[in-house]
Amino acid sequence: MEEYSYKLEMQVRDYECDMQGIVNNAVYQNYLEHTRHEFLKSIGIDFAEYARKNINLVVVRIEIDFKFPLKSGDDFWVGLNCAKESRIKFGFFQDIYRSSDNKPVIRAKIIATGLNEKGLPSLPPELVESLTAFES
Amino acid sequence: MEEYSYKLEMQVRDYECDMQGIVNNAVYQNYLEHTRHEFLKSIGIDFAEYARKNINLVVVRIEIDFKFPLKSGDDFWVGLNCAKESRIKFGFFQDIYRSSDNKPVIRAKIIATGLNEKGLPSLPPELVESLTAFES
Amino acid sequence: MEEYSYKLEMQVRDYECDMQGIVNNAVYQNYLEHTRHEFLKSIGIDFAEYARKNINLVVVRIEIDFKFPLKSGDDFWVGLNCAKESRIKFGFFQDIYRSSDNKPVIRAKIIATGLNEKGLPSLPPELVESLTAFES
Amino acid sequence: MEEYSYKLEMQVRDYECDMQGIVNNAVYQNYLEHTRHEFLKSIGIDFAEYARKNINLVVVRIEIDFKFPLKSGDDFWVGLNCAKESRIKFGFFQDIYRSSDNKPVIRAKIIATGLNEKGLPSLPPELVESLTAFES
Repeated sequence: MEEYSYKLEMQVRDYECDMQGIVNNAVYQNYLEHTRHEFLKSIGIDFAEYARKNINLVVVRIEIDFKFPLKSGDDFWVGLNCAKESRIKFGFFQDIYRSSDNKPVIRAKIIATGLNEKGLPSLPPELVESLTAFES
Repeated sequence: MEEYSYKLEMQVRDYECDMQGIVNNAVYQNYLEHTRHEFLKSIGIDFAEYARKNINLVVVRIEIDFKFPLKSGDDFWVGLNCAKESRIKFGFFQDIYRSSDNKPVIRAKIIATGLNEKGLPSLPPELVESLTAFES
Repeated sequence: MEEYSYKLEMQVRDYECDMQGIVNNAVYQNYLEHTRHEFLKSIGIDFAEYARKNINLVVVRIEIDFKFPLKSGDDFWVGLNCAKESRIKFGFFQDIYRSSDNKPVIRAKIIATGLNEKGLPSLPPELVESLTAFES
Repeated sequence: MEEYSYKLEMQVRDYECDMQGIVNNAVYQNYLEHTRHEFLKSIGIDFAEYARKNINLVVVRIEIDFKFPLKSGDDFWVGLNCAKESRIKFGFFQDIYRSSDNKPVIRAKIIATGLNEKGLPSLPPELVESLTAFES
């Protein structure tokens, strides 16, 4: 298991499970987004505040490998690392593990950028600074 | 504010907010369901285990008064009381409060029953016993 | 079966079903909201446009009776009537039926109002006019 | 624009939009899943029926490039092609376009397999046959 710069513990909720009795694939993206936003908040960046200022942080690419499904009652944790990908892109490496035995659940890479008020790709300097300082 | 037999603390996640910047109405039902299932678990009743045995706990009526909207970043808690409504129905009284100032967010009443393997209304005796013991 | 002023046909999607193999309760609120917004659009009122102008149409109370569950593969339709409840409130009566046999699925009453830029209850005059003209 | 073996038209629903006023990233996975299940149904394969027989069709990897966001009121269509990836894996190539101008919204590749009653990777022969016959 890798080292992670940020971790968040969560718990499966029954309404997130589908007719197969396991967490629906799309829900993992919710888990990942929530973890990224909590991580950003932890380094002083408020996603909602940016959205209100019409600066939108957006995902441009996502890759997820599904290793093992979570089911009702499972506790899990999300590990996160980040790294600059280019002048205007950041990569988030986010993996999910079942808490009871640290069994890998998913491995994901998410590439994100920012869009300014005019809808053009652009990252606010203070965001770049915070993320770079944190880079793992 | 009333007394509650069971309480659960939660937190708004950004993906639960809609274009008005507030938690979407339907999401409160998710919060309420999750709280009921956690409550049931706390008294020894596992919703998913019942579902696997083809005994389905189902909601037959829901009433929700929306008092004040939650938004991104809000912490909140759900208070729950329950009371027998009839031989085969239970009522759950569930209210949500914003944690920072205990401002009322919603007040809800949910009527639930059970359906046995044949799809007929029926409550497992151990469920009735546990809920009655807990009745507020 | 009642007469309805507005009808919308929809179809259950598998991701809307939960571990019981039926549509999750909260999802019906999504169906009802989508139908209201489509209805409003049909009489010239765009929910999203209002939201952008900071005039928010909001639900203040919801009552739903769950009669029979929809499941994977089901087609269904939502019937809608509306009526003025007070100077600043409208009631929407929305029922869902399974299409194959018109079996009642849910019966719902939703009370809605508007909030102006200052967050005070208020209905734009053109909205009142359109809804009143339509009143069933 | 490519040729697609299967197409499905859909429409953005307001509850699918987030505080940025655009469709939330995770929702596209719902769109893609619904399209795959409709496609499978069109070639005689019922996802829910398989699930009831404890044969689970599961996604093992997903790659999505987000090109342009859908927003409230947008109509869109999903194009789908499929190809065998290995003895037990199939790839689905699914792209979403905004209907008004065929602007590309997302491009996705989804790798799926089947799990038999024992949870082991395995594709039912009739599924392989149907998908291979359809292969683009």
